[in-house]
Amino acid sequence: MEHPIRFVIEKKLDGALGRAGRIQTPHGDILTPAFVVVGTKATIKSLTPEQVSDLNAQVVLANNYHLYLQPGFERIKKAGGLGKFMNWNKPTMTDSGGFQVFSLGVAYGKKVSKMASNIDTENIIQKDNDTISSESAGSLAKIDEDGVTFKSVIDGSSHRFSPERAIEIEHAIGADIIFAFDECTSPLSPYNYQVEAMDRTHRWAKRCLDFHNSSVNSNTQGLFGIVQGGRFEDLRKKSAKIIGEMDFAGFGIGGSFDKNDMNTAVRWVNEILPENKPRHLLGIGEPRDIFGGVENGCDTFDCVAPTRQARNGALYTKEGRINIRNAQFADDFTPIEIDCQCYTCTNYTKAYIAHLFRADELFANTLASIHNLYFIVGLVENIRKSILDGTFAIYKRNFLASYYK
Amino acid sequence: MEHPIRFVIEKKLDGALGRAGRIQTPHGDILTPAFVVVGTKATIKSLTPEQVSDLNAQVVLANNYHLYLQPGFERIKKAGGLGKFMNWNKPTMTDSGGFQVFSLGVAYGKKVSKMASNIDTENIIQKDNDTISSESAGSLAKIDEDGVTFKSVIDGSSHRFSPERAIEIEHAIGADIIFAFDECTSPLSPYNYQVEAMDRTHRWAKRCLDFHNSSVNSNTQGLFGIVQGGRFEDLRKKSAKIIGEMDFAGFGIGGSFDKNDMNTAVRWVNEILPENKPRHLLGIGEPRDIFGGVENGCDTFDCVAPTRQARNGALYTKEGRINIRNAQFADDFTPIEIDCQCYTCTNYTKAYIAHLFRADELFANTLASIHNLYFIVGLVENIRKSILDGTFAIYKRNFLASYYK
Repeated sequence: MEHPIRFVIEKKLDGALGRAGRIQTPHGDILTPAFVVVGTKATIKSLTPEQVSDLNAQVVLANNYHLYLQPGFERIKKAGGLGKFMNWNKPTMTDSGGFQVFSLGVAYGKKVSKMASNIDTENIIQKDNDTISSESAGSLAKIDEDGVTFKSVIDGSSHRFSPERAIEIEHAIGADIIFAFDECTSPLSPYNYQVEAMDRTHRWAKRCLDFHNSSVNSNTQGLFGIVQGGRFEDLRKKSAKIIGEMDFAGFGIGGSFDKNDMNTAVRWVNEILPENKPRHLLGIGEPRDIFGGVENGCDTFDCVAPTRQARNGALYTKEGRINIRNAQFADDFTPIEIDCQCYTCTNYTKAYIAHLFRADELFANTLASIHNLYFIVGLVENIRKSILDGTFAIYKRNFLASYYK
Repeated sequence: MEHPIRFVIEKKLDGALGRAGRIQTPHGDILTPAFVVVGTKATIKSLTPEQVSDLNAQVVLANNYHLYLQPGFERIKKAGGLGKFMNWNKPTMTDSGGFQVFSLGVAYGKKVSKMASNIDTENIIQKDNDTISSESAGSLAKIDEDGVTFKSVIDGSSHRFSPERAIEIEHAIGADIIFAFDECTSPLSPYNYQVEAMDRTHRWAKRCLDFHNSSVNSNTQGLFGIVQGGRFEDLRKKSAKIIGEMDFAGFGIGGSFDKNDMNTAVRWVNEILPENKPRHLLGIGEPRDIFGGVENGCDTFDCVAPTRQARNGALYTKEGRINIRNAQFADDFTPIEIDCQCYTCTNYTKAYIAHLFRADELFANTLASIHNLYFIVGLVENIRKSILDGTFAIYKRNFLASYYK
């Protein structure tokens, strides 16, 4: 079918899956690769939409789960949709809430990370037939074939999402790009549970797509299918094939990776997904991983890290992250980065920002978030330029050598 | 002497002390009456200076006590002064920290209000010779003739301000208008203690002025003397006479009032203070009190209430304050005020702001603060216009009838 979201490839990386392109949406084009700014609850924490737009952000991702609970999707619909509600007139996305339903569902404060570092694979394989793992997964999820029953992170009340219900909510919220409802497993889930969850995610993907295509919203919103399969090559490839053959407007690559294997897992998937549709790598924002994701064929990325770390005083520089609360910055009357063109760096010193953090002043969040988002949005924009002018490999090598030195 | 701060009266109110004018400062003119936005710690909580400037604020007041403790006045001096440090290029003021030294000094969390409502005067007079009152005042203050020893509100460490030291710090911070170091008594202090404190404040005022006039900073910063005297007519008049005869660039009216008598106390003072110098009413921001202050001859006002109340969800409208957390606003898709031209009202609905408050989102503070400051800055600007065009009495009557209906 004719999707309201279209993708045009402008240039490909030699010998790799990466590409520069443009995602066309009803609210304008997204030049890719692009970093998607996270506005979970219809606000980019501590920032005005104009501040976000001024730092060259092209697109904002909100969250179906959080907006369903608060303020409720009917309210956002009444407001004229997400963009109008939050005063953001460029493209928008909503995550389906799959990850939150499972990570925040019953856990109520307990977090599931999307990425595990140094997983003891032996240990996971040993647990394969262990009842603890499946029970634990079951208790987090309360899953049945039809959907998931979960508890509100706000008040513990019980709620239920089915694939159809999740899409119905995303339709009401009205983002340009919406994601299918998937089951996001823990990086620690064993192989046989990954298979079970993935197969269910595929059946749900089909239901999401059928529901979406039968709605008038399919004329204005594009549905992205989500590839799962954890850290396992056969599952990732199977998932990419099955999801890739469905007529989605684009794809999300979700779920858990071993941090050291992310690039490999992404490559397995993107070698199979149709080339002419955009691919979003969900929840990834570390510079090293963004380079890897781009090189292996991903077009867009989102992550809460730049703003969350900003609020903790961890600021990005080309020489790596600094903690602005460190004593040395209290008397440093230079900007965070001398050549940075962001609002923060052109108007404030490290000494001032350090003062705001020490004094617990709210404006600290604003200045730090602007800088970190400008940094990461600009990084991905520079990656795009380097693809277009054929300097990706050099840019990557130089950036990473400086950032992780 | 020739002061760097000059005052020009543009028009006087018929039959009252009020006037419209203009305070000339090295960083531009302040058209009066004017509301001074409070930026205690060199930041207007949750706002950029551009947002503050865009809502038509003309001048920001920071606090000597807080900046002395954090980040330290030497740092602000190194940064090039308060305005450069915080990226605010219009006029600035600093309060001397007198109020904070006494209210936060030893109390460490215990607050002294500037205004007492429905004070039982009998009771206070009875306490006149009571040791409890003077002991209590003494323990809050640790005052001697030379200065005050106080504890840091941050870490309880011991510090000392003398009049000379307070001015030295205000010189380093570098605001256009600085205030003399005074003793701010509690509204509950008895008459004989008010006399003692006032006489000391007068001696300190002279020392502040001598120290200031002997410094090159007197070429670029204007020192305002502070009139005290509590709720007592004879003391207020005596203080106005003594302070008014000293060669200050302007005056602050400080200390405690009975809420019902504020206008009277202000009139006592302003009938005596020289007419050709500006008068600042310290810490007053309630609309009723601003009208009263203007009518009785005050030119500028500062108060934390608009931003503090904003952060609590109390929003100003011409029909009085509303609490945005009330259930009725969750589905109200109109602005806080339909005809308000502030950034918040031109871009966001009450439903959105209510959502941000319920979700504990930082952006709630920004939107609410912008609206409340726009409201109160605009109110005082409208009062100025009404003086200039001869409609003050009508404007006052209509505004108050609507706001306190």
